[in-house]
Amino acid sequence: MSLVNVQQKHRFADTLRKLLRRNAVPNLKKILERTHPADVASVLESFLPQERLRLLQFVGDDDRQADVLSCLPESLAADMLGELPLDRAALLLSLMSGDDRADILGILDDETASKLMKAMPDEESDEAADLLRYGENTAGGIMSPEFLAMTQETTAKEAIRIVQESPDVEMAFYIYVVNLHGSLVGVLSLRQLVTSKPEEKLRDIMNPHVVSVRTEEDQEEVARIVSRYDFLAVPVVDEINCLVGVVTVDDVIDVIREEATEDILKMAGAGEELDDRPAVFTSIKRRVPWLFAALAGGIVAAFVIGQYEETLRQFPLLVGFIPVIIGMAGNVGTQSLTIVVRGLATRRVEVKHFWKVVGRELLVGVLLGVLYGLVLGAIAHFLGLELGNTTIRMALIIGMSVLLAMSMAAFVGTATPLLFAKLNIDPAVATGPFLTTTIDVVGVLIYFSFAKALL
Amino acid sequence: MSLVNVQQKHRFADTLRKLLRRNAVPNLKKILERTHPADVASVLESFLPQERLRLLQFVGDDDRQADVLSCLPESLAADMLGELPLDRAALLLSLMSGDDRADILGILDDETASKLMKAMPDEESDEAADLLRYGENTAGGIMSPEFLAMTQETTAKEAIRIVQESPDVEMAFYIYVVNLHGSLVGVLSLRQLVTSKPEEKLRDIMNPHVVSVRTEEDQEEVARIVSRYDFLAVPVVDEINCLVGVVTVDDVIDVIREEATEDILKMAGAGEELDDRPAVFTSIKRRVPWLFAALAGGIVAAFVIGQYEETLRQFPLLVGFIPVIIGMAGNVGTQSLTIVVRGLATRRVEVKHFWKVVGRELLVGVLLGVLYGLVLGAIAHFLGLELGNTTIRMALIIGMSVLLAMSMAAFVGTATPLLFAKLNIDPAVATGPFLTTTIDVVGVLIYFSFAKALL
Repeated sequence: MSLVNVQQKHRFADTLRKLLRRNAVPNLKKILERTHPADVASVLESFLPQERLRLLQFVGDDDRQADVLSCLPESLAADMLGELPLDRAALLLSLMSGDDRADILGILDDETASKLMKAMPDEESDEAADLLRYGENTAGGIMSPEFLAMTQETTAKEAIRIVQESPDVEMAFYIYVVNLHGSLVGVLSLRQLVTSKPEEKLRDIMNPHVVSVRTEEDQEEVARIVSRYDFLAVPVVDEINCLVGVVTVDDVIDVIREEATEDILKMAGAGEELDDRPAVFTSIKRRVPWLFAALAGGIVAAFVIGQYEETLRQFPLLVGFIPVIIGMAGNVGTQSLTIVVRGLATRRVEVKHFWKVVGRELLVGVLLGVLYGLVLGAIAHFLGLELGNTTIRMALIIGMSVLLAMSMAAFVGTATPLLFAKLNIDPAVATGPFLTTTIDVVGVLIYFSFAKALL
Repeated sequence: MSLVNVQQKHRFADTLRKLLRRNAVPNLKKILERTHPADVASVLESFLPQERLRLLQFVGDDDRQADVLSCLPESLAADMLGELPLDRAALLLSLMSGDDRADILGILDDETASKLMKAMPDEESDEAADLLRYGENTAGGIMSPEFLAMTQETTAKEAIRIVQESPDVEMAFYIYVVNLHGSLVGVLSLRQLVTSKPEEKLRDIMNPHVVSVRTEEDQEEVARIVSRYDFLAVPVVDEINCLVGVVTVDDVIDVIREEATEDILKMAGAGEELDDRPAVFTSIKRRVPWLFAALAGGIVAAFVIGQYEETLRQFPLLVGFIPVIIGMAGNVGTQSLTIVVRGLATRRVEVKHFWKVVGRELLVGVLLGVLYGLVLGAIAHFLGLELGNTTIRMALIIGMSVLLAMSMAAFVGTATPLLFAKLNIDPAVATGPFLTTTIDVVGVLIYFSFAKALL
């Protein structure tokens, strides 16, 4: 059964709810024991804390319970573990895979985390302590410390035996070959192993050109490597090329999703994370800075308009078109910005081609500006809006302003993220506020300069 | 050697350029033969068409040339094949994996595609014809027709032999078990096979609870299934449950990237695709519709402002704050919109929780509105902007307008995408224009209503 469909998920949750209410333990066990841990995890969130703990105990043995916890969002898993007795929580944690365990320990408060680590077996707690040293968004932070490493002298037959005896290593499709110092020297796939002669040595089967990443490598780079070469996993080495872990493709998928979400939210100035249960105050704190930039821009725009008080007093008709001029410019600017920021993230746009990219977007902006300048000018003309005794003057002012404001916005929307990327500032986070502010201010400045000049 | 780093990539391209200029064929061969096809592909784009074809012939045998073409963006691969002699293009195409071949044939014009298919071996051209029947964004459209399928009576030993004799199946980590009618009945991993006793039958080793997708399933759903269950591949079945292909995790990664890009661009009204070499005209065509919606909104806003001509004539000070009021509202609205649209895409926000989500965002909007209403009101007050003989009145109008406009924007920004999702309209594409238009119009309406009422 797969619960990917939203309706199925709701039906499943409703069934569980009914059974819980009737306290139908045998039925709950029966249904939960044959449901995939990922599916159980997907509905747990919609239950009350006490119900969650009850449901967890019905999913099966400790291993399955640990699997369900692994599939939950980290914050929820941490909450649930916090409500279990210490030794029980430590047991379930110790049964999780090393990377999931470290992630959960990483978000718990220090006191709880250290208590749990003391209650865990030494091997698991040492491993967790090792992993917690690495930055959250680095290869070290997302790697799993479980992998298959063998020496060059191992024969294919011995290697197969080792694979058979290592049921704990999840996703073991690659076998890494290390020398006597633990340095990574080669890789082969399980399939290559199966198709080799039993007496062949790994040194003769392995591919010595193994691509690896360093523990401190940014997770985005890791994701890029895995997806570019269609790897199922990439080995992680420390500063002396010792193999310390692997990042598997399922973690890479999570990274790609997260990074896309992060970029989208950053561009809107709405923080970096999509929480599952965000606090209102956290949301506000994240969104205040960009709004503050917009406020500053708006006040400057108010001052600019104040400078043209006399013009405005004579020709109040000008006021009505303020929103459309800054609106059109803002939209074109956002389009260019979005194309460039996403292009930089997916590597389709390169900083090196600065002038080519800017030139192209500017051309698009100018052409769109001509189009909408003509349309808006014509509308102003046909509405017979008279300014300084001619309608043609109003049409000219509005048309020219739209053209110039849109071109300017396309230029700023393209050039700013490229410049920021060049200076190694994240273009997604830094350009949003800058862009809106600039466009508002320059937009009204363009409009009123034209108006003053032509009147 | 890995060329993920942008600097390394440029250096590599420069080296190739130098060698090409000197016509240093042996050096070119030497360097290209030991570079990963994905890395060769990553730099090919920056060369002229004729140079690309020369470089391609130096990468090694036909298989490696086909690999490089597989790693290129489809449009570029199609261009290159179009410049090769027909039989050579057909040969390279026939050496590609089935899904890549179908993708390239799919974007070629019908005449070229059918010529190429005639020149290909029957098996490959039939397979391509089969795949081309499926929609581009469905499981059928992205699946690979090469997989390992065996019957339930096969023993582990025989199965291993079959694996050894099927070098063409890429990424063969799962073995699918089918019954006599070709229906999918189970799955096992290569690893399970290796750890089984030689005489065991697949029916006793396999997992009969196999999750599969139908050929017409949307690629986003396929991606969700693979990433939720941490699969390396998911089998694709037709309407009578016959196994017809597999979607592997590397294709899923591409889908996730593509879909994120699509959503980001749609939200900015900048089309759906990030082309590698976009035509200016295509860009304009994609961006015009949203801009048109913004234009319409702007014109309505102009009419609204026109209704308050008398108020404006008396109190021209009001004009200066138009940009900041619609700007602040627009920003809050975009933030809410972004959070909801991305939340819907990643399934963290559910339409079912309409009022909970709307209530939460509205609360955030109101609180942010109170904050910035106070700030802007205070600024207006301290600047001593007098309106109708009191500065307090100006402060009140501006503060209240910001509060109400921001709250309204948060509400519209949250409720619209949820409503659209409920009506099965893509929230990413549909809400952008609606939101900006509404906020501009309602923003000025709120502002001038307050002004008129308080004066």
